[in-house]
Amino acid sequence: MERIIAESKVVDGLVLVNPMHITASCYVNDLERGLHQDIMEWLEKMAPYHGKDGVDGPEYLHHRTGEDNGDAHLKRQLLGQQVTMPVQNGRLHLGTWEQIHYAEFDGQRPKRILVKVIGIQQE
Amino acid sequence: MERIIAESKVVDGLVLVNPMHITASCYVNDLERGLHQDIMEWLEKMAPYHGKDGVDGPEYLHHRTGEDNGDAHLKRQLLGQQVTMPVQNGRLHLGTWEQIHYAEFDGQRPKRILVKVIGIQQE
Amino acid sequence: MERIIAESKVVDGLVLVNPMHITASCYVNDLERGLHQDIMEWLEKMAPYHGKDGVDGPEYLHHRTGEDNGDAHLKRQLLGQQVTMPVQNGRLHLGTWEQIHYAEFDGQRPKRILVKVIGIQQE
Repeated sequence: MERIIAESKVVDGLVLVNPMHITASCYVNDLERGLHQDIMEWLEKMAPYHGKDGVDGPEYLHHRTGEDNGDAHLKRQLLGQQVTMPVQNGRLHLGTWEQIHYAEFDGQRPKRILVKVIGIQQE
Repeated sequence: MERIIAESKVVDGLVLVNPMHITASCYVNDLERGLHQDIMEWLEKMAPYHGKDGVDGPEYLHHRTGEDNGDAHLKRQLLGQQVTMPVQNGRLHLGTWEQIHYAEFDGQRPKRILVKVIGIQQE
Repeated sequence: MERIIAESKVVDGLVLVNPMHITASCYVNDLERGLHQDIMEWLEKMAPYHGKDGVDGPEYLHHRTGEDNGDAHLKRQLLGQQVTMPVQNGRLHLGTWEQIHYAEFDGQRPKRILVKVIGIQQE
């Protein structure tokens, strides 16, 4: 991320971080292993992989298309799909504990994240 | 959307897509009918129209104002209220399955969506 | 907020409103006291302060670090972490009922919100 911002030569602006996939999230939170697992367990409780109410519940309608990732589409919305962060003095301007994370809930194919920097460039 | 971007003459930048209403969402996900219904059923389970725990649960406090759309305000936050997407070469730069959707959970009044394009204009 | 935008001299652009803390949200919704309480009760139901399933449920793993704010990290993601809003004619361009809110779910330390305005400046 820092490399992309440096290459953009933008010193003052915004950077959009957006997964190009609809079963993934870019979000900002703490980089702490226990919290990471808490988040994943919480998402699984809220939008279970095994259908609408867990193992014995009805399937997602989306699975009629042959996909099995209905839960991934919901988890992405719950966690938040994208973030826009500030760039200042040519660097990401983050709070002490802010870290940008990427979460992929499907993982069947190679993935791309779009990072777009706009703003005033270095002269 | 493509028309607005073309008229803005922005070739490289960002577009903000924001509902001007607080009972609505702009979000990015798959354009698949089954998934769409899955999302709507999931939102209804998480934030029921009929009060806090469904049909027999207590009403939303917001309904004391005469409104009956407490659930719509919650569904909007759950699904995500707005998106910012990249513009490149004068067009929306989307992943293969990314589609911008508008969801309205109240629907009592005519609605407006704000689309704001910023960036470098064509010379 | 209006003061920051005025001082930025940006007349046409975007403003990013981002809490610099990962237990907080900036979001847009109605400024109505009952709805505010509905939102807070809903967040507590979805991500309880007292561990994963409420008072008698297992603790968040994050609490092994000595923190007790696992719920705050989840509530922030559920409500939405940040907003980007349009600036037009040197002012925030909001829908009739749109209001930017800050919600803090931990509250142990002094907090900062980052407000970043970008766009075309007044000549």
